[in-house]
Amino acid sequence: MIRSLLIGAMGLASVACAHAQKEDVPPTPFVIPAENIATSQALKETALKSDLALDIITDLTTKVGPRLAGTPQEEKARTWGVEKFKELGFENVRVEPFELDLWTRGRSVYEEVTLTAPYPQPLYAISLGGGAATPEEGTEASVAYFKSYDAFKANTETDVTGKIVFVGDRMTAARTGEGYGWANRKRRDAWIMAEDRGAVALFIRSVGTSSNRFAHTGMMSFPEGRRPNIPALSVSNPDADQIERISATGEDMKIRLKTFAGWRGKSMSGNVIGEIVGRENPEEIVIIGGHLDSWDTGTGALDDGAGVGITMAAAKLIADLPEKPRRTIRVVLFGAEEVGLVGARAYAKERMEDETLDNHVIGSESDFGAGEVWRFGSNVGADALSAMDAIGRELAPLGIIRGNNKSGGGPDMMPLQAAGVPMGRLDQNGEDYFEFHHTPNDTVDKIEKSELQQNVAAWAMFTYLAAELDVDYRAGREEE
Amino acid sequence: MIRSLLIGAMGLASVACAHAQKEDVPPTPFVIPAENIATSQALKETALKSDLALDIITDLTTKVGPRLAGTPQEEKARTWGVEKFKELGFENVRVEPFELDLWTRGRSVYEEVTLTAPYPQPLYAISLGGGAATPEEGTEASVAYFKSYDAFKANTETDVTGKIVFVGDRMTAARTGEGYGWANRKRRDAWIMAEDRGAVALFIRSVGTSSNRFAHTGMMSFPEGRRPNIPALSVSNPDADQIERISATGEDMKIRLKTFAGWRGKSMSGNVIGEIVGRENPEEIVIIGGHLDSWDTGTGALDDGAGVGITMAAAKLIADLPEKPRRTIRVVLFGAEEVGLVGARAYAKERMEDETLDNHVIGSESDFGAGEVWRFGSNVGADALSAMDAIGRELAPLGIIRGNNKSGGGPDMMPLQAAGVPMGRLDQNGEDYFEFHHTPNDTVDKIEKSELQQNVAAWAMFTYLAAELDVDYRAGREEE
Repeated sequence: MIRSLLIGAMGLASVACAHAQKEDVPPTPFVIPAENIATSQALKETALKSDLALDIITDLTTKVGPRLAGTPQEEKARTWGVEKFKELGFENVRVEPFELDLWTRGRSVYEEVTLTAPYPQPLYAISLGGGAATPEEGTEASVAYFKSYDAFKANTETDVTGKIVFVGDRMTAARTGEGYGWANRKRRDAWIMAEDRGAVALFIRSVGTSSNRFAHTGMMSFPEGRRPNIPALSVSNPDADQIERISATGEDMKIRLKTFAGWRGKSMSGNVIGEIVGRENPEEIVIIGGHLDSWDTGTGALDDGAGVGITMAAAKLIADLPEKPRRTIRVVLFGAEEVGLVGARAYAKERMEDETLDNHVIGSESDFGAGEVWRFGSNVGADALSAMDAIGRELAPLGIIRGNNKSGGGPDMMPLQAAGVPMGRLDQNGEDYFEFHHTPNDTVDKIEKSELQQNVAAWAMFTYLAAELDVDYRAGREEE
Repeated sequence: MIRSLLIGAMGLASVACAHAQKEDVPPTPFVIPAENIATSQALKETALKSDLALDIITDLTTKVGPRLAGTPQEEKARTWGVEKFKELGFENVRVEPFELDLWTRGRSVYEEVTLTAPYPQPLYAISLGGGAATPEEGTEASVAYFKSYDAFKANTETDVTGKIVFVGDRMTAARTGEGYGWANRKRRDAWIMAEDRGAVALFIRSVGTSSNRFAHTGMMSFPEGRRPNIPALSVSNPDADQIERISATGEDMKIRLKTFAGWRGKSMSGNVIGEIVGRENPEEIVIIGGHLDSWDTGTGALDDGAGVGITMAAAKLIADLPEKPRRTIRVVLFGAEEVGLVGARAYAKERMEDETLDNHVIGSESDFGAGEVWRFGSNVGADALSAMDAIGRELAPLGIIRGNNKSGGGPDMMPLQAAGVPMGRLDQNGEDYFEFHHTPNDTVDKIEKSELQQNVAAWAMFTYLAAELDVDYRAGREEE
């Protein structure tokens, strides 16, 4: 159901041109009304001087800190979120609760892992989300070394019964972060192969580009609800180097580990929502946000305090305008993203059930740290492309190039996007994101204020224009 | 006792000129014989392509790893050192043992420290060398916050009885590393003030420039043999930021800590020595080296595996020359440097007792990581300056400027230097040294091979020329 029609002179021109295009006549580009350009410029100037996003992130990470999904810390974060939204003057502030399966690390964020043979020394490693505990006294076993995920998968002859399987693969740093998916394969399902082949534990080289001795944690995947019976740990890159060097000597290598990780039954999480109600079409929603939960070792400043701070601050700057935008801006601080987009799925499911999904005219999440925005992508109907290009031209002076129209809107947007909600995307420079991601080093001091301000500027401009311009972002889609 | 006299044409010219200088006639500069220049050039070329230093450091950190003074790990390092010297063909390989007071961290390198109020979250902190243990169940107390060492010293009114004293001060990074001493004051003796004023523990902001959550450890000072009865811990910089932010709110802040650190009575350490015996004046010694012990959290790659690797490799390249240098090159891998130059003092004491101290014609230690050498300093007699300047001119193409004649020769050279042994100094770029120093991140992957090779080149050239040239490095000193 499309509530927004292309009305008004520019909108009609746009439609005409989209049709004209089919006859190879160049379309007239969408033109943003001058007063809207002026407003978006003013938002930019304010944002580039605003401390608000950094204040929000500092407050969240100082007063709540780590906030693993389903724990009392995440609950505290929801209370914080509600209070912060109210303090900033958002409307319709509420929590939408949902249930989830709780996994926790157990006693401490410091897990004891020691190389015991042939060259004893402490290792720095951390349980992966979803992994099982060792017995109370720990586990000690020889290491079966596989240099890569592919090598482990291919080599089914090596007997790993009773052994600790170690799987390599180094992540490549990139502005786009695209090295992550490949390096992450071993985190997702290597535990299944290891367990099926009789291993007592899985160790993987830390997914992440850091030469730091903090290992990268993260959730594993659980096909058909199956859960690991073995511990699964990530080993810091320098320690993985050590394991690789020793493996090359051919000597028997032993590791002792102790972890208290495990699944703890059902628990509650929730999405925290605040709105700026639209002045003309309040039922139409531009949805933006980040996720509120974080991993338990750091304080979740970059992942995703940054997304929370950027989108809350951008919306607040828009709320401070003399006139609210035409549509409603809904800021959602999703719960339980890290453990499998649980909050995002709950959010989308509810909108499918109450049939308000199509009210979501466009969406976007900020969940890639606090590096500067360098590219503006989209995923809209063909007839809305010219309008997105026009928004892109406004963003360009911030150093942002126009990306393609095949972008995802961010992890928590996936269920909405799959259900047909159009997306915008403000791609951040992720060159150093995986230096800190999912480690204790994800703390607020890693944020460069000027880069954060550039993010807020881009988000304020995009969100305002998306909410204000008379564009149907679904227009021209095949299915329409 | 000066065994080396200024003999030969250039030497005599030098002496003549030194005398002439007093009458304001410019001295004829010392000229290095052409064949020695050719040899030092050849050493440079070989060194810049050599993997030996990196191989040595990798071997030491892989097979031994952390090697805290007085522990079995340091003993294993001595065995490693003896074997490595022999494998490389050094002569007179031996260990000179000495006794020391042993301090260890206790159960684990992972120490549990938690901020319990007002905003509970784990902190990353580590006991300072020499600190005491908490009771088995840990200690919890309110924090008395002092922004700096000076503030703690000056503010004697604040009652810290039963509290945890926190002392700030941020270290400034510098190529020379000179921010270390100032920032280190709180590590040295703040425990005495804290203990005397009734505190239950001392916490300091990590000395070190890293934004990493690994805190910088290191030995405290113990005037008159007094030892702490309270735990003393270093808190990572991001966690110290957290403590500072909370302190600014004025709320009561509580920390719980658990450490098993303590003094363990007497133990043994030792200096490991290998030589290249001089062809003409074997009794004259050019002493170079690094220290073998390291802190227990990292693997001591930079501190001081690098010094061990650089000086062993440089000496080995000299040993491989068709002809040994005139004097003996003695490479000393000192024990127990980190805990108070115990090995260096033992070495110097023995040479004072057996009256061989004056045989040490010049010395230098490499103990500042693996950053490239950028400055060549010295501490020699006035009449030897021209020769040092000439060596400096040979080093210049490596990007090394000539420093002054007031340099120290490195920590383990201090007792020798105090007893009158002349010194050379190859200053390394320490801009990022304190990113890794005394933390788990001191691992071999932090070493840039090309920079290490430049070090070996500079050390091979300096050591060869120092051992070969017909110069009395004490000549022209006031006391002579």
